[in-house]
Amino acid sequence: MHTYKLILAYDGTNYSGWQIQPNGLSIQELLQNAIRVLTKEEVVVIGSGRTDAGVHATGQVAHFRCSSPINFHKFSRGVNALLPKDVRLMHIEEAPAHFHARYSAISKTYHYHLHLGKVENPFKRLYSWHIHDKINLSLLQESARLLVGTFDFSSFANEPNQGSVVRDPIRTMFELNVKADDDSIRLELKANGFLYKMVRNITGTLVEIATSKRAPDDIPRILASKDRREAGRAAPPNGLFLIKVNYDLYTPVSEAIP
Amino acid sequence: MHTYKLILAYDGTNYSGWQIQPNGLSIQELLQNAIRVLTKEEVVVIGSGRTDAGVHATGQVAHFRCSSPINFHKFSRGVNALLPKDVRLMHIEEAPAHFHARYSAISKTYHYHLHLGKVENPFKRLYSWHIHDKINLSLLQESARLLVGTFDFSSFANEPNQGSVVRDPIRTMFELNVKADDDSIRLELKANGFLYKMVRNITGTLVEIATSKRAPDDIPRILASKDRREAGRAAPPNGLFLIKVNYDLYTPVSEAIP
Repeated sequence: MHTYKLILAYDGTNYSGWQIQPNGLSIQELLQNAIRVLTKEEVVVIGSGRTDAGVHATGQVAHFRCSSPINFHKFSRGVNALLPKDVRLMHIEEAPAHFHARYSAISKTYHYHLHLGKVENPFKRLYSWHIHDKINLSLLQESARLLVGTFDFSSFANEPNQGSVVRDPIRTMFELNVKADDDSIRLELKANGFLYKMVRNITGTLVEIATSKRAPDDIPRILASKDRREAGRAAPPNGLFLIKVNYDLYTPVSEAIP
Repeated sequence: MHTYKLILAYDGTNYSGWQIQPNGLSIQELLQNAIRVLTKEEVVVIGSGRTDAGVHATGQVAHFRCSSPINFHKFSRGVNALLPKDVRLMHIEEAPAHFHARYSAISKTYHYHLHLGKVENPFKRLYSWHIHDKINLSLLQESARLLVGTFDFSSFANEPNQGSVVRDPIRTMFELNVKADDDSIRLELKANGFLYKMVRNITGTLVEIATSKRAPDDIPRILASKDRREAGRAAPPNGLFLIKVNYDLYTPVSEAIP
């Protein structure tokens, strides 16, 4: 049995998200179907985690196991020929047998893009959240810093749709950087894991603070409450990008850039 | 009578180009309809020039004349509420009575985006031309320089569709800069005017040279031939952006950033 690790980029605009679901077209389904065609095996493709409808990725990671060895160059071309152009397989390598895209991950990086122009830029509309109100950058940075560390992030988590799984809500936020230029702001979040809708709920809350609808010292209070209703509204999905999934170092069994 | 100068940005992906035409939805038609609704006058909107289907703009200029004065703030909000989100009015000002978006223009700037990754980036697919072959940057720069100056650009011009207008094919290219980073190249062209499909025909030819399908010294020969068949194939429309239309300095009668 071989285990393959894949890196994927996708524009989430036209999809119902990563995860296979009965209604709506998912990235996972498209990818799994393409791989089944090429490998002629009933492979199951597992992602590092779901991304919601409209959320983008430049570095989603997935794995699958199959019995036949793969010619990477041919496989990559084949998969990309079968996939629509807004979903691309960027990299494939053979990973150790125990590798699992979700359970082996030690941290993830997400970026959230805000766009600040007075008129919404037509080229950013699908890839950022357009903020009309004036953003106070110091308030944004100050409140972002308050979320770095190990906390119970329950207040920033929505119940998953199939809600029955109770998960430990403690996460460690390693970084929450704010990068700004003339007309855009990027929030860069790195944590050992993210609860459901956590990045969007954090972003929505930080924007409420940065537009002076809340005070920065709301953050410790929100965290302590462990109550989703205390945090702000979720930011829209289209500003969110899954950038990178990090794993413990390992030597790939074999590797190719397609 | 008032004359208004408009600056527009649009994602050309979903349109049949700037110019009103019997089949297909044009930016000019959308804009003119929106302005007619707001002004309640049968205004005619004139652009600085056409952009083809799939071509984008961040600085298209247009003008219209109407008898009633306009409240810029209200007008901008109204126009942008009526337009689809991939077309935006970015600026309006009242211009001198003789101002004409096309005939008053003294130069224009276009950018053409090339994308070089081994796998096409899903986020650049609608906004750049993906080049699989290796690009020789020195060859690209060397051949670009040969097009700066005053020439008969007939070899790089297609016949306009409604072809009967004979236009002087002499143009002065002020700049043709090549800006490169890791995985993308931007051609920046500034000329006192561009013939039909001239930027795309120039780009296609330069890419043939940069991928070693032609020699740089083909350029003087192509120019001298005045024969479209001597130049390379047109680059696709989706990499092309109309960035700026330049006019002689004048003092706007009144001005607003919406």
